[in-house]
Amino acid sequence: MKPILAELLTIGDEILYGQIVDTNSQWMSVELGKIGIKVIRKTSVGDVETEILTAFAEAEKRADVILITGGLGPTNDDLTKPLLAKYFNCEMKMHAEALEEVTAFFKKRGREITEINKLQALLPVCCTKISNAIGTAPGMWFDRGEKVFVSMPGVPYEMKKMMSDHIIPKIKEKFITPTIVHNVIRTVGIGESILADKISDWENSLPTHIKLAYLPSIGEVKLRLTGTGSDENKLQTEIKLLTEKLLPLAGEYVYGYGEEPLQSAVGKMLTERNLTLSIAESCTGGYLSHLVTSVPGSSHYFLGSMIPYDYQIKMRQLGVKPEVLEKNGAVSEPTIIEMANIVRAKFNTDIGVATSGIAGPGGATPEKPVGLVWIAYSDKHHTVTKKLQLSTDRLLNIKAASVAVLNLIRLSLPAR
Amino acid sequence: MKPILAELLTIGDEILYGQIVDTNSQWMSVELGKIGIKVIRKTSVGDVETEILTAFAEAEKRADVILITGGLGPTNDDLTKPLLAKYFNCEMKMHAEALEEVTAFFKKRGREITEINKLQALLPVCCTKISNAIGTAPGMWFDRGEKVFVSMPGVPYEMKKMMSDHIIPKIKEKFITPTIVHNVIRTVGIGESILADKISDWENSLPTHIKLAYLPSIGEVKLRLTGTGSDENKLQTEIKLLTEKLLPLAGEYVYGYGEEPLQSAVGKMLTERNLTLSIAESCTGGYLSHLVTSVPGSSHYFLGSMIPYDYQIKMRQLGVKPEVLEKNGAVSEPTIIEMANIVRAKFNTDIGVATSGIAGPGGATPEKPVGLVWIAYSDKHHTVTKKLQLSTDRLLNIKAASVAVLNLIRLSLPAR
Repeated sequence: MKPILAELLTIGDEILYGQIVDTNSQWMSVELGKIGIKVIRKTSVGDVETEILTAFAEAEKRADVILITGGLGPTNDDLTKPLLAKYFNCEMKMHAEALEEVTAFFKKRGREITEINKLQALLPVCCTKISNAIGTAPGMWFDRGEKVFVSMPGVPYEMKKMMSDHIIPKIKEKFITPTIVHNVIRTVGIGESILADKISDWENSLPTHIKLAYLPSIGEVKLRLTGTGSDENKLQTEIKLLTEKLLPLAGEYVYGYGEEPLQSAVGKMLTERNLTLSIAESCTGGYLSHLVTSVPGSSHYFLGSMIPYDYQIKMRQLGVKPEVLEKNGAVSEPTIIEMANIVRAKFNTDIGVATSGIAGPGGATPEKPVGLVWIAYSDKHHTVTKKLQLSTDRLLNIKAASVAVLNLIRLSLPAR
Repeated sequence: MKPILAELLTIGDEILYGQIVDTNSQWMSVELGKIGIKVIRKTSVGDVETEILTAFAEAEKRADVILITGGLGPTNDDLTKPLLAKYFNCEMKMHAEALEEVTAFFKKRGREITEINKLQALLPVCCTKISNAIGTAPGMWFDRGEKVFVSMPGVPYEMKKMMSDHIIPKIKEKFITPTIVHNVIRTVGIGESILADKISDWENSLPTHIKLAYLPSIGEVKLRLTGTGSDENKLQTEIKLLTEKLLPLAGEYVYGYGEEPLQSAVGKMLTERNLTLSIAESCTGGYLSHLVTSVPGSSHYFLGSMIPYDYQIKMRQLGVKPEVLEKNGAVSEPTIIEMANIVRAKFNTDIGVATSGIAGPGGATPEKPVGLVWIAYSDKHHTVTKKLQLSTDRLLNIKAASVAVLNLIRLSLPAR
């Protein structure tokens, strides 16, 4: 089977000037990989007519699928739409359905549509309009022989929704894609190189048509198995068997599979056990609660949090005993035990968790350096604490400590 | 003056597969921009000989400075070095000084150098070696007529140190660079197209050597002015005057300049006024507190938060009157006023803010659709509320509502 090749083209001076980091193309690469399409090149050009037209022509020579993001705003510096019309040699016309959609978008938000907004519905007549459910700029799909050009907004959440809902299904319709079976095994609490050591024999035994990738993120490593072939059932069986062989090696670090983030896996465990959760978070400053509440339906098990950022608030609002705080300081095991127990009692939940640490850059002492964080888990059976020594980076510490608490909940919950 | 053009070329399958996000090229763009070099294209190709050689040739046609990262490891899948030797038609030889450096690198870490490591010092004879102070792969500088190719490691901290210490100074030696002056004006609470309408006369009056770009993100639009010329003082003055003319048009939507995010601008306002803040956040679930505490030093003005996610917690822990909740529901103006006033009183802060809404996807009623959010600001002088109708996307609603509260604080604070 001939491989289907893709090129990702990002348009906008803001990328070339370095004012934004392009995270879109990484996400798009992963989504295309899932349906067996290989990205052979990524290109970014500025808001310059000749550069854009040249990039269109070069990409068309190299790739079957050309995915373009950016340059779709209604303002004068946005050139993608008129240049696609020019490249495909067709005129622009007001698209009735697109105009309805953009009008409805504003109406729903109680705002009047302006003349400039209406221009979003002006589309090249040779394209198929792709609806933008959460923004004003429609996408455009251009067929030319065996190839396709797709233009999407550069705003990440608009692009992602459009790509998942419309573009991926349309690509699968137009092209015969190989059969690719993925399995992502999600681990937390172990570093990439230690994990690689643990599973090296298993990794070396993989057949050539099944590849392994390590995908590290803060506190986590995902293992992605990718099998390529023609018989989906056979691939599924092979990957299932390989996963079963991996599990005893990776042990308690494995928390789930596929797209399910740690906060969802923990939420599911709480739901299954019919347990409720409350949080007292200090150094994580709200990020832990945000992870928990980013899961739809989390209100079924998460009742609430206290963020006692200030020393006085730790005593007066949360109720940590002054003598415990004064003797041990806010960042200490006795204090974190108090925090977890108290929030559990006050909020009347089955489980209470807590964080206290030095996120940095300020606040360190010789005994308590930046990156020192205490975390605790409390239920009616036991209280579990953990001391972390993280990095010197404030945001990284906030995120890594929050992930560590979710993992602590996972490992400390009573068995079902 | 002829502009000096640069192309950034990233080599490696890990970029095309989406296994890593390329943050290098954003940093490099910013550094080049500071010395007046314009990046005209970014290209990423995989570990494939023909792709890499083609990319070299294409880049040489377009740009004066070609900066290459990645593909410098000592293993067989790293092709950059042998292909640069091939492209410049020169042989590879062991470079005595480079060998000393890589040997010293291992010795310093108490490790024996292996034969594979020694290959790092094998360099094309036609290049100038660039020392890598914190890694094993040296950089390479190739002059060809008026143009230059530079190859650097892909590891971000190695690349950054090499670029700052060696490459930027060498580029400034070789080229006469223009002067570029940027000013970023940050706005919040107004959409891109409405803002464009408001400032269209001003935008149309810009001289050709000063460009405007709109950079939208959730709840915000940044306006970037970029002036190119030879006289820095003149450009600074021009851009300052243009910014002053813009301000009355963009009015209260402008909150700051440059790299300073909204949460830092609000933090600075609180610090200047010597005011403290507490938060009662329901539908935003911790994200608002996270934004506030992501700012280093926020503990000077932010005392704490309550996240009364559950209905009962709103009454029992926060202390919202049952009759107010029962009569109006949690997502209502009377309740949000109570929440902001109560958290301010309980936490004994100057300012209290609150959020309550339907983040979605569940929880909607005919009168209260997904995306409906009430926010409030309270200080001793007044209480200000705002009703938002956001999207159907949970995470987007959480983030947009949090930004709206920061903006509400900004607009409601007492004058200094």
